Amino acid sequence: MRAYRMTAWGTPGEHVEVAEPTPGPGQVLVRVAGCGLCRSDLTMRQMPRAAGERLGWRMPFTLGHETAGWLADGTPVALVSPTSCGTCRLCVRGMDNACPRGLAGRGYGQDGGLAEYVVADRRAVLPLGELDPRHAGPLTDAGATAYHAVRRARPRIAPGGTAVVLGAGGLGAFAVQFLRILTGARVVAVDISDLRLAYAKSVGAHEVASSLTEKADAVLDFVGTNETIAAGIAAVRPGGAYGLIGSAGGRLDRAWFGVLPRDGEVFTFQGSSIADAQEVIALAGAGLIRNQVQEFPFEKVDEAYEQLAAGTLTGRAVVLL
Amino acid sequence: MRAYRMTAWGTPGEHVEVAEPTPGPGQVLVRVAGCGLCRSDLTMRQMPRAAGERLGWRMPFTLGHETAGWLADGTPVALVSPTSCGTCRLCVRGMDNACPRGLAGRGYGQDGGLAEYVVADRRAVLPLGELDPRHAGPLTDAGATAYHAVRRARPRIAPGGTAVVLGAGGLGAFAVQFLRILTGARVVAVDISDLRLAYAKSVGAHEVASSLTEKADAVLDFVGTNETIAAGIAAVRPGGAYGLIGSAGGRLDRAWFGVLPRDGEVFTFQGSSIADAQEVIALAGAGLIRNQVQEFPFEKVDEAYEQLAAGTLTGRAVVLL
Amino acid sequence: MRAYRMTAWGTPGEHVEVAEPTPGPGQVLVRVAGCGLCRSDLTMRQMPRAAGERLGWRMPFTLGHETAGWLADGTPVALVSPTSCGTCRLCVRGMDNACPRGLAGRGYGQDGGLAEYVVADRRAVLPLGELDPRHAGPLTDAGATAYHAVRRARPRIAPGGTAVVLGAGGLGAFAVQFLRILTGARVVAVDISDLRLAYAKSVGAHEVASSLTEKADAVLDFVGTNETIAAGIAAVRPGGAYGLIGSAGGRLDRAWFGVLPRDGEVFTFQGSSIADAQEVIALAGAGLIRNQVQEFPFEKVDEAYEQLAAGTLTGRAVVLL
Amino acid sequence: MRAYRMTAWGTPGEHVEVAEPTPGPGQVLVRVAGCGLCRSDLTMRQMPRAAGERLGWRMPFTLGHETAGWLADGTPVALVSPTSCGTCRLCVRGMDNACPRGLAGRGYGQDGGLAEYVVADRRAVLPLGELDPRHAGPLTDAGATAYHAVRRARPRIAPGGTAVVLGAGGLGAFAVQFLRILTGARVVAVDISDLRLAYAKSVGAHEVASSLTEKADAVLDFVGTNETIAAGIAAVRPGGAYGLIGSAGGRLDRAWFGVLPRDGEVFTFQGSSIADAQEVIALAGAGLIRNQVQEFPFEKVDEAYEQLAAGTLTGRAVVLL
Repeated sequence: MRAYRMTAWGTPGEHVEVAEPTPGPGQVLVRVAGCGLCRSDLTMRQMPRAAGERLGWRMPFTLGHETAGWLADGTPVALVSPTSCGTCRLCVRGMDNACPRGLAGRGYGQDGGLAEYVVADRRAVLPLGELDPRHAGPLTDAGATAYHAVRRARPRIAPGGTAVVLGAGGLGAFAVQFLRILTGARVVAVDISDLRLAYAKSVGAHEVASSLTEKADAVLDFVGTNETIAAGIAAVRPGGAYGLIGSAGGRLDRAWFGVLPRDGEVFTFQGSSIADAQEVIALAGAGLIRNQVQEFPFEKVDEAYEQLAAGTLTGRAVVLL
Repeated sequence: MRAYRMTAWGTPGEHVEVAEPTPGPGQVLVRVAGCGLCRSDLTMRQMPRAAGERLGWRMPFTLGHETAGWLADGTPVALVSPTSCGTCRLCVRGMDNACPRGLAGRGYGQDGGLAEYVVADRRAVLPLGELDPRHAGPLTDAGATAYHAVRRARPRIAPGGTAVVLGAGGLGAFAVQFLRILTGARVVAVDISDLRLAYAKSVGAHEVASSLTEKADAVLDFVGTNETIAAGIAAVRPGGAYGLIGSAGGRLDRAWFGVLPRDGEVFTFQGSSIADAQEVIALAGAGLIRNQVQEFPFEKVDEAYEQLAAGTLTGRAVVLL
Repeated sequence: MRAYRMTAWGTPGEHVEVAEPTPGPGQVLVRVAGCGLCRSDLTMRQMPRAAGERLGWRMPFTLGHETAGWLADGTPVALVSPTSCGTCRLCVRGMDNACPRGLAGRGYGQDGGLAEYVVADRRAVLPLGELDPRHAGPLTDAGATAYHAVRRARPRIAPGGTAVVLGAGGLGAFAVQFLRILTGARVVAVDISDLRLAYAKSVGAHEVASSLTEKADAVLDFVGTNETIAAGIAAVRPGGAYGLIGSAGGRLDRAWFGVLPRDGEVFTFQGSSIADAQEVIALAGAGLIRNQVQEFPFEKVDEAYEQLAAGTLTGRAVVLL
Repeated sequence: MRAYRMTAWGTPGEHVEVAEPTPGPGQVLVRVAGCGLCRSDLTMRQMPRAAGERLGWRMPFTLGHETAGWLADGTPVALVSPTSCGTCRLCVRGMDNACPRGLAGRGYGQDGGLAEYVVADRRAVLPLGELDPRHAGPLTDAGATAYHAVRRARPRIAPGGTAVVLGAGGLGAFAVQFLRILTGARVVAVDISDLRLAYAKSVGAHEVASSLTEKADAVLDFVGTNETIAAGIAAVRPGGAYGLIGSAGGRLDRAWFGVLPRDGEVFTFQGSSIADAQEVIALAGAGLIRNQVQEFPFEKVDEAYEQLAAGTLTGRAVVLL
């Protein structure tokens, strides 16, 4: 079958022909309909061998961790993006996105969705109902990660209050939508790109701005530089939340006491839980959120990655298989 | 000043002329703009003296517990509907709606809002911003009580799940709206009145029905008969919530074990907290909920009560002072 | 190997010789050290075939759902008592005790722990550390169920408040202990048996009584008759919790509105989650709870059940294999 | 009456003779039995006038914010240490410890408890029951602040898990005790003083150490230097909590993403709520916590402050009036 794979450490992926995979016990075979591309795919090209091996990655592996397609009986399904064991202390509490076994998974160290077929644990299967499997992949990662951020912040957002999204890209635009339908807050999107702000507005942001100038019950930071962390922390009201999702590597160069939100909460995380993905798909199925995608044929994966890197996409790139 | 008062046990209220009240320490004087009428006003006419006195009520008292108006400086404000002491175990935990001092208050045993002026503790004052004080009164009682129900059930409603409102009258129609903007659930309104169902639909119910035929994450029962309790309890999914707000006096004629929602929650309450009222007003101020009222001049209080009793109102009755 | 089995509907179990089981994919083989006996085992003798088959039970099956022993490598482990699928909506949220697949499991419709060997999903394995596997079985069911009740009620118990346990038998005595170490509440045990009250006192109850005469933040009812439900509900303070664990089939013959705990919570459930069992074992491993057992050799299972039925045990019966 | 007062900016307090205060509406007069001394009293001597005036402080004022005594009718009471308005958004939600009106209060900018009499809002009165008002003062500040930290962290501490207290001084020793009776966790106290570690052990710490070397569900940092913040953050398990209570001015010199606790919580706060103080007093009244004090007569306030500054006290200093 056709697949797009990392074949060596430190190089981009490439189109290859490989054998169809065979599901093991407790697994299913999924014929891929579409697979979303993610900025983290690009960073995998730079991953040093030593770092990859520490994570338990093996080369070669097929890229793609935003996968949807069909089961053998034709049922349209998406696949949970993060990997988890299902049995550890965290998994049995619904915190599977922090499972220690999540370091390697479909599309990052193991075979992912940029191929005609992929195998998955039954536990990772998300029935799609009426949703189109060619486009659903991004819901499981960009969508579910943004959802997790909103879920974490939600108890600290007063209905009628204010929530801020820093960075209105793929994840941030999802966050705007979840905040709109789940919190009753006024939603402010902050970004330096007019294009992204316009999209944020089109999916429901009450206000858009190029910098953060007001107090909020919650600030969700999808950027994560020194600047956004400082501005975000300073904006949070007593009892509010600052959530760091962006991995730009920022820190806070100020004393914490008296500066972090008073009796509030600072949190960060990676990925999303199976429950998050289920709820995102339910919300999409109910027509409550919009998942803007830009289609690419499988032959044009490289071009799609180029546009992703260049920031010229007008939605999440999905590669059709 | 003009006032509409209960003057004797077991009789309807009447229009009287009384002295303007004087605020005590920690209190403010409010010039009333409008006061909502509530079904519970009607039951006060039947209250036996012994029962009233046990609650600490004194006769005469001015009716009206959905009050809004202006402070001396012209600031438009509404008044918290339930009374609370501000100092007890419950009040200092934000559970003031269960304060033991809440049995008598403005409009039930003490002078309420169907008068030109009313006094209130500073703690009960809710600034209205741009909202019209002639219409805001119902937000503090019908609105805030429905809101409290939704707030209690909300952690048990999965985004993308289903929430049911039994009884789509004044409170139920508010509940439909709060569920829509705060939960991401599909909202089903159940009522025997086509008129009320049409209104529920107009304020956002996804579906309306004359009986409850599906499973739900939460059922909010604004009726409270044997029938609605049985149907509501049976409809709740594992982990879900059944909230009883309607005071029709029903019970459940079945064994509880194995019948109440599995690992879910059954709750009931009366009134709403100050925080509830603040959030309802914030949501109304943000234009996220609709507060349908029908205006009556002060001279027509009796007619308004008649229409309320007859069920012919097309919104919450507000009496303009 | 030796096993104690239900061999036909409507009859007691019996000692039989059967083949050792073979673990399937994702499963482990456990050599049983000890297996606790539960009152529910006795009710299985009365289970009509039709009811059993509706639950998915197959005959014959080995009894015993409080199992502990050793893995092939000698690691001492207990086995989660309730069955769950690990993949459904409830399981991935840590609510596996309400999993719809939980109707049949080890010891109830499938082969359980009253045998030399038993198989279990890897997910059901609970490492015991220093705990003795001959005695640990009851922690997974009697212990974990009582723990689940306390966990549910805990957010509603004010430190320094009062918690009541109705019925101080096997589960109730565990509940007394969990309340003592987790809530900071004064713990009152209510029972009609002086023997059980003495035991409750010995494991930490501050007070014991033959009837419930005071108000409490939480009442955990391990009996569940009309009488205990009425008394328990009446005792709960505003904002408190009433938890029904006892399956005696009681109901409340009063109107719910104004009678159920004001702005509190009524809950019921069956079983316990994997997380519950993990935490119970951690607490037992830390020496914070006492697990009183009475040992019986495998040959004397019938005698142990007789004593269980007669109420003459002085601890949870464990059968040593 | 006798009082110990700050009389000028930038100087220590002094013994003076002043008039007895008169309670206003909604206030009570309290005859002081004992008043605890706090390290923050010492910093008030250095407070510049401009800073003090920005906080709304007026000079002179009587020191002492850990006050207990008797009402006019002889009822023993303690007084809530932080000030709050009772009406703002935060107060009506039980978050009064973050009330914006809390910057000036009894003993910090207004007359406090180092005097024969003090006035207090009725809302601030905490009945003591059988507790000794000469010693109860520290419960309202050192005790309640430590309690607030434990209350915040508690939902993230798995029973049977581990909780760490960094800094086993006055507040830390209280935290050890609250963790013991409320969480079921193994409690580890970390300090550089053997004396403090010995005390921590005597009030229940399972382990004491001079540095933090293990993972924990929660770390409560009563020190707050760069070093304790770095060590504390690094020790928190996924899903756990790091609480900063110590005001030593530390920060974290590392990127936040991937370093802050994964899907956990970082929080900080000042003071405690009325509800916190109520619960601390209930726990002390139930004999569940120990409040070690060292008595000083009123004439020896200066000596007590000297010992406090020198770190030679063997308990919280209380001055008897």
